Amino acid sequence: MSNLIIVGSVALDSVKTPFGSVKDALGGAATYSSYAASFFAKPSIVGVVGSDFSRQHLQLLQQRGINTDGVEIRKTGNTFRWEGYYEYDLNEAKTVRTELGVFADFEPKLPESYRNAEYVFLANIDPELQLNVIRRMKKPKLVLLDTMNYWISNKKQQLLEVIGKVDVLLLNDSEARQLFETPNLVKAAAAALKLGPKYVIVKKGEHGALLFSDGSHFSAPGYPLESIKDPTGCGDSFAGALIGYIAGKSSNSEKDLRKAIIYGSVIASFNAEDFSLERMKRLTMAEIEKRYSEFEMIREF
Amino acid sequence: MSNLIIVGSVALDSVKTPFGSVKDALGGAATYSSYAASFFAKPSIVGVVGSDFSRQHLQLLQQRGINTDGVEIRKTGNTFRWEGYYEYDLNEAKTVRTELGVFADFEPKLPESYRNAEYVFLANIDPELQLNVIRRMKKPKLVLLDTMNYWISNKKQQLLEVIGKVDVLLLNDSEARQLFETPNLVKAAAAALKLGPKYVIVKKGEHGALLFSDGSHFSAPGYPLESIKDPTGCGDSFAGALIGYIAGKSSNSEKDLRKAIIYGSVIASFNAEDFSLERMKRLTMAEIEKRYSEFEMIREF
Repeated sequence: MSNLIIVGSVALDSVKTPFGSVKDALGGAATYSSYAASFFAKPSIVGVVGSDFSRQHLQLLQQRGINTDGVEIRKTGNTFRWEGYYEYDLNEAKTVRTELGVFADFEPKLPESYRNAEYVFLANIDPELQLNVIRRMKKPKLVLLDTMNYWISNKKQQLLEVIGKVDVLLLNDSEARQLFETPNLVKAAAAALKLGPKYVIVKKGEHGALLFSDGSHFSAPGYPLESIKDPTGCGDSFAGALIGYIAGKSSNSEKDLRKAIIYGSVIASFNAEDFSLERMKRLTMAEIEKRYSEFEMIREF
Repeated sequence: MSNLIIVGSVALDSVKTPFGSVKDALGGAATYSSYAASFFAKPSIVGVVGSDFSRQHLQLLQQRGINTDGVEIRKTGNTFRWEGYYEYDLNEAKTVRTELGVFADFEPKLPESYRNAEYVFLANIDPELQLNVIRRMKKPKLVLLDTMNYWISNKKQQLLEVIGKVDVLLLNDSEARQLFETPNLVKAAAAALKLGPKYVIVKKGEHGALLFSDGSHFSAPGYPLESIKDPTGCGDSFAGALIGYIAGKSSNSEKDLRKAIIYGSVIASFNAEDFSLERMKRLTMAEIEKRYSEFEMIREF
């Protein structure tokens, strides 16, 4: 039985940055986040891939102790493909092409054993599907929800409904401003907390992340990266490491959530140092702990 | 004898924000920064005003223990006036009108007693004037330099020269990117340090501030302000409180510089809560220390 399940996309990404490029490289929110979580816990993933998906990709995840029983392998149709590039400032992904393939009619299928998991990460998918997953969980202790601007624009009511059913809402600063129609992140977070979540985490890219709860505020510093190769998957690595740490500790305390955000920032900072999952694949716990200590020194006054 | 001198503009500002407006209110970099510094030290200011400048403004500064002997009062000509507004996101000041008045041919005049000061803040003025001030100082222990995009565009060589002669360079993130022609702040800071300064401080508005030195990095969190009325003077209040704290302690250690950055952030966060110097005028040390403690809790993990 797994204590942590992660639901989201498994994809093949073609990415260009000023520092190189990859074609059909392993990607997707569930992939990045489960790999990041695997440093701290044994996650199970729910997703869908096509007949073109290499068995080696699944093996890579399995070797990290990730349960892939929830990954549906369709006999017809292709895996979700994303093609994009980043310009010199690496801030914003520009999409060239999206081929949804089998992801177009993705319906998360939860193996029975998954339904007992206490920790759930709902990566960015249709909020109606996210809601269906929550309904099928038997005793969730902490549900973490991610989303994106597409759902804010196109399924806002459904998104607001699912936000009301989760414990931690995760979104980036521009999404927070868009969803709650205010430039002020403090006001946006207050509006989010009113919907139900106990915590709201706002990702700010190079500027770090903010944690808001009723009456408390935490600011995680960004890591001063001199050489970024590819920011793809950083948000998902952040979320995966965060929920992985929390699930591994089986804790819901704000204290551990703050530490989890730092571990999320650590893994995300490593992830940006290479394409696809390459940097995570050669990442060690010793490197993680060393960078965690650097985060401690970075904020010391 | 004063231990801290501040050189910069004294101005009358007309400002509109979504939360109100003021006309010909006391402003200017030397004004905001000296007032902010006065919570920690007894600064002396060097500036110029016209015949239209109210004696009450000078008295306000003098009552805070600020020495104004270095403020030249011209018998003809008007005080520097700036008119601008902020839109809903309060991020960027839009200039409607600038009337330089007597500031057009400002030449900082240092009373003899000022030349012994050990701490110097050169607020944003022509880099050639900044260089002249440095040359006249007898035994400066720490010179803090601010600038703006105008000088980066128009007097880059002179600016680079003066940067080579100061101890701490202060600039905001967009200025750092522009001056060192890189989107990466770590690279920009490294380039700045190569020119000579021991420290570079990058202001990031709501995202806080970064301190870079050779081999060390500090990230100061932003303060989660729910209600900002007017961000005018926040950068100058930040700088003034920072150098005031350092001068008051007569310290040059990185440890104290980190604390100074937090005090700068504290004063700047208060400054944004009202127009002109209104919030600082009613600010107490107890409020400052309370918010400093909040900054400690904000970054705790």
